[in-house]
Amino acid sequence: MNKKRVTLSQGGGGEETSSLIKELFFRYFDNQTLLKMEDAAVLSLNSKKIAFTTDSFTVSPIFFNGGNIGKLAIAGTVNDISMMGAKPLYLTCSFMIEEGFLYEDLEIIVKSMAKELKVSKALIVAGDTKVVPKGSVDGLFINTSGIGEVLKEGISAHNLKSGDSIIISNEVGNHGACILAKREDIELELELKTDCATLWPMVEALIKGGVKIKSLRDATRGGLSAVLNEWAETSDVCIEVDEDKIPVADEVKGICEMLGFEPYEFANEGTMAICVQEGDEKKTLDILKGFKETQKASYIGKVTDSYRQKVILNTPWGSSRYLEPPKGELLPRIC
Amino acid sequence: MNKKRVTLSQGGGGEETSSLIKELFFRYFDNQTLLKMEDAAVLSLNSKKIAFTTDSFTVSPIFFNGGNIGKLAIAGTVNDISMMGAKPLYLTCSFMIEEGFLYEDLEIIVKSMAKELKVSKALIVAGDTKVVPKGSVDGLFINTSGIGEVLKEGISAHNLKSGDSIIISNEVGNHGACILAKREDIELELELKTDCATLWPMVEALIKGGVKIKSLRDATRGGLSAVLNEWAETSDVCIEVDEDKIPVADEVKGICEMLGFEPYEFANEGTMAICVQEGDEKKTLDILKGFKETQKASYIGKVTDSYRQKVILNTPWGSSRYLEPPKGELLPRIC
Repeated sequence: MNKKRVTLSQGGGGEETSSLIKELFFRYFDNQTLLKMEDAAVLSLNSKKIAFTTDSFTVSPIFFNGGNIGKLAIAGTVNDISMMGAKPLYLTCSFMIEEGFLYEDLEIIVKSMAKELKVSKALIVAGDTKVVPKGSVDGLFINTSGIGEVLKEGISAHNLKSGDSIIISNEVGNHGACILAKREDIELELELKTDCATLWPMVEALIKGGVKIKSLRDATRGGLSAVLNEWAETSDVCIEVDEDKIPVADEVKGICEMLGFEPYEFANEGTMAICVQEGDEKKTLDILKGFKETQKASYIGKVTDSYRQKVILNTPWGSSRYLEPPKGELLPRIC
Repeated sequence: MNKKRVTLSQGGGGEETSSLIKELFFRYFDNQTLLKMEDAAVLSLNSKKIAFTTDSFTVSPIFFNGGNIGKLAIAGTVNDISMMGAKPLYLTCSFMIEEGFLYEDLEIIVKSMAKELKVSKALIVAGDTKVVPKGSVDGLFINTSGIGEVLKEGISAHNLKSGDSIIISNEVGNHGACILAKREDIELELELKTDCATLWPMVEALIKGGVKIKSLRDATRGGLSAVLNEWAETSDVCIEVDEDKIPVADEVKGICEMLGFEPYEFANEGTMAICVQEGDEKKTLDILKGFKETQKASYIGKVTDSYRQKVILNTPWGSSRYLEPPKGELLPRIC
């Protein structure tokens, strides 16, 4: 049976492009602003303070356990906006598609994007579609950019002070391990899934709950290790964390031991590090544990001034070591 | 001599990524918001009405006469914002780079982006860098998204009414012909250049000059033909244009005759169609002719109600024909 495939003419800017946009993208991303088909979406905001971000997604394989490139593209950009204390409102979405890409796969991806958008209620208000000749891109890349209204000002990576507490919202390394396992054809006894999730509901609950948030950062490429090192450097502080308090799934530990990786360097796609003012740890954990995706949230350590711009990992057997910032290319095309 | 090339580790999210961002992107796109390196840029606007757009650029070849993919990526997104009567303010920029891409080429591209930004004074406030293994992308794709403050409300493709006048800001087809000539190795007697240009200064002058603008649209993929047909369809009107009033460079005519194309379907990257209220043609042309890039602006026709949703081309020898919306894939990877 001949399956429908994306053709070059669907990226040419003429009638076929118009049909693809109307039949697929308008159908699933349906809203009044998008349907106007102007060169740019014209939007009315309630606030004059906004957060603005962009992310391109090149993950391989495109489909993996617990998600696909489309879910990732929505959650990733919505999360970046959320990390600034901003409510995600409007997204743009650009598809770079290889000629011959299966139409039914594209539809599954677009459907899961529409589903993931429902979590934050953000809307796709503008888009772009490029189709490139076979061999010019491997399957499909997606770029999403987004804007949100800042609900809580002053959340920043420059804010950390000695005494602040560090919390991680979930197990670390699930996304990286899941992609690696799929790529290396590693059979897992238990099904390991990506942590890919939209974090806005949890951030909104923390803001509404009055938690004194200093900084938020989702631990994507470079994992928890990259976030903690960036914080230590940017705020010129030391961060000390206890290894036995950092939740890591057994399957992730297994893959790391097998292949010689550190789970702290594995990418996550729905897991954030949270720095709160001392005393707000319990409130933070209570709120996070009310959500399925952040039930495993854990208080993992403190900001100190012992070794500035360094992250210290205290091991369960009493020794300590620097948690170095990640180097080299751990895993290309992870997101 | 071994030239410096982009490595996979520069897209890994660790130390090498950080170095690339600081040495290259921060150096040329330097501004306080970008340098904060947060997950999203936090911005203060003067207006609550904004325009928001996105565009991915996949042009091949990456360097061409009069520009490169970087200049295109800035002008293209700035122009889409301008077309809504909005002043371009903030851009995000995402690079998808093939492992091994020449660092010096990347630097030339980034430099020309910085130069093109100066025309509109827009700033790149957030970015993303992905490096993918050799073969996963052909060289370099760039996505730019942007927001602007709406200075003049109500500019829309839904606005055209019988009696309105249609103006084109420049010769049509130069970008398409230039890319095609380079790709097909056609030697041109005179040097044909892309029309790639930032149109905000001209749009701003039209707004400040009090021109009654109904709609603006830059004639990119699908060319003038796509814009006029979209307008006719969206506003449910007829558009009648005179072929001999549409400026086309001799070299473009030559290429079209040689290869059997229509110049009206060729992409432009710094040429806009303008619909103004009847009586404002002269004012519009006077303003446009004050800018080097729009010196060849021409009043090409009228909105009528003779054949709704159709575009009619009146030929110099007294006959008329429909200017059909473009079909098929004229030229992949044109922008």
